[in-house]
Amino acid sequence: MTNSIYAKGCAWINDEFVPIDKAAIPITDTGFTRSDLTYDVVAVWNGKFFRLADHLDRFERGWNRIRMQPQITRAAMEDILFDCVAKSGLREAYVEMIVTRGIPVDGDRDPRNYINRFYAFAIPYVWIAKPDHQLEGIKLVIANDTLRTPTTSIDPTVKNFQWGDLVKGLLEAYDRDAYTAVLLDGDGNVTEGPGFNVFAYFEGRLITPPDGVLQGITRATVIDLAEELGIPCSVERLSAEQLRVADEVFLTSTAGGVMPVSMIDGQAVANGDPGKVTMLVRELYWQAHEREQWTSVVTYEQPALESIG
Amino acid sequence: MTNSIYAKGCAWINDEFVPIDKAAIPITDTGFTRSDLTYDVVAVWNGKFFRLADHLDRFERGWNRIRMQPQITRAAMEDILFDCVAKSGLREAYVEMIVTRGIPVDGDRDPRNYINRFYAFAIPYVWIAKPDHQLEGIKLVIANDTLRTPTTSIDPTVKNFQWGDLVKGLLEAYDRDAYTAVLLDGDGNVTEGPGFNVFAYFEGRLITPPDGVLQGITRATVIDLAEELGIPCSVERLSAEQLRVADEVFLTSTAGGVMPVSMIDGQAVANGDPGKVTMLVRELYWQAHEREQWTSVVTYEQPALESIG
Repeated sequence: MTNSIYAKGCAWINDEFVPIDKAAIPITDTGFTRSDLTYDVVAVWNGKFFRLADHLDRFERGWNRIRMQPQITRAAMEDILFDCVAKSGLREAYVEMIVTRGIPVDGDRDPRNYINRFYAFAIPYVWIAKPDHQLEGIKLVIANDTLRTPTTSIDPTVKNFQWGDLVKGLLEAYDRDAYTAVLLDGDGNVTEGPGFNVFAYFEGRLITPPDGVLQGITRATVIDLAEELGIPCSVERLSAEQLRVADEVFLTSTAGGVMPVSMIDGQAVANGDPGKVTMLVRELYWQAHEREQWTSVVTYEQPALESIG
Repeated sequence: MTNSIYAKGCAWINDEFVPIDKAAIPITDTGFTRSDLTYDVVAVWNGKFFRLADHLDRFERGWNRIRMQPQITRAAMEDILFDCVAKSGLREAYVEMIVTRGIPVDGDRDPRNYINRFYAFAIPYVWIAKPDHQLEGIKLVIANDTLRTPTTSIDPTVKNFQWGDLVKGLLEAYDRDAYTAVLLDGDGNVTEGPGFNVFAYFEGRLITPPDGVLQGITRATVIDLAEELGIPCSVERLSAEQLRVADEVFLTSTAGGVMPVSMIDGQAVANGDPGKVTMLVRELYWQAHEREQWTSVVTYEQPALESIG
């Protein structure tokens, strides 16, 4: 498998499969020059896509919301995603799909005239925080210098690459000896961070913010699993003050799952160890990656025999 | 010239010159996947760069502000920009330069570890509105559905591709039978539109907003030229109400220059013709493209003899 030309990842670009290190998009695509696109990321774990239909549903809602219409069907997209993973041979993969507005012809400024484009790639699974790091717990800050872009400007439910605020928050976290940051809205409520939703366990229930955030699939999964576990879970505003005094805090992302937070702004969350509820949800989250109703099995190709380079 | 492989444009990608239709950036560059970059656009008019040093100054301030450090010197960048134009043979060009955060290695989430990348390209001059259209006057709307992303989230003085709000405004303009849109801030003040600053002539003086906007080089040029013409010009807050009752309104951009507005939200600006002050400034703006202190002459190569394809 490791001698496949796709072993480091496989992309679908301009209607063909290419090794990830050769995958490039036109510099004139307004997906780049205007960040005019939507995307989604789905995980493959132990050779199975996790909740692929839910990711595709969100992706489709997103491109409709920003008035795009890819040139291929959803079924064809799905085939391409399976093929990217199968060619790569990756049993654990981070699979990204993107629809961009497309390329202006002759300097045309009217995005309605562009042909929307579909790109995809599968690379090795990405961890916002690796498993060992998760068990130590993540050091989080509440960003002081940056607020989350309000929904009156950019709709966070249409998954996008406009991460200026999130990257600034991340750099602030490093400056403050932390690992990542959560951003507040203009009313002092918790929103989200670079690539993750936030949950607090507080007064006997889980809380996660209702809006101003991506409607994460991992977030949705945690809400589902909490119900199974009999843990009350409420989708409601979460203030910075509540987050600071919560009994447990964790982050959720397709890139890492359920990730315990041990510190906020230099203060330990409870006694600083990953919380019991967090660890219970986390364990069930990974077990759920084998559930038939949530998984789609990849059929891997024979390992390609081409040598690299 | 037209048989040069660069006749449609020339790009600098991965340390080599390529025809624009072959120019592509790695799909894994966080300049794409996080829109983590800054850029600038300078015009070449009649074979001369216009205010190149000012564009490079702004570009350099931008990458410093977001903590990037390109791997090549500013002088080397400048050489590449001249070469892109010279190879293209374009006498009127839209020349873009970009510094991106770069490519994560092995899923590394820490942008401080990435090697920042420099890209550039020259394509035929782009007009937000073509000259004939400018003389008719542009139909503008004040966006109802979208506010400009506030500076507490994203700094508009670091020129960026995070255009979600601006593209949404543009689509709203089309829905309302207009050509483009200006966005307000949360206090009802005028900010900017997709690719342009705004000026109003009102109570005997020009007004353009002080902040929450790109510090445009065309905007700066208009401020300079107004002073030469003895037209009072004030950099101050401009409310939507003031814009609606202004005697003249125009837009400024490197991609189009000084562009008269004839209508706002379906109502004529004054009598609906381009205003006198607007046309005076516009004429001087184009004349200024021959001033020695603001121009840098391109030395064109012999036309390349390669045939296309």
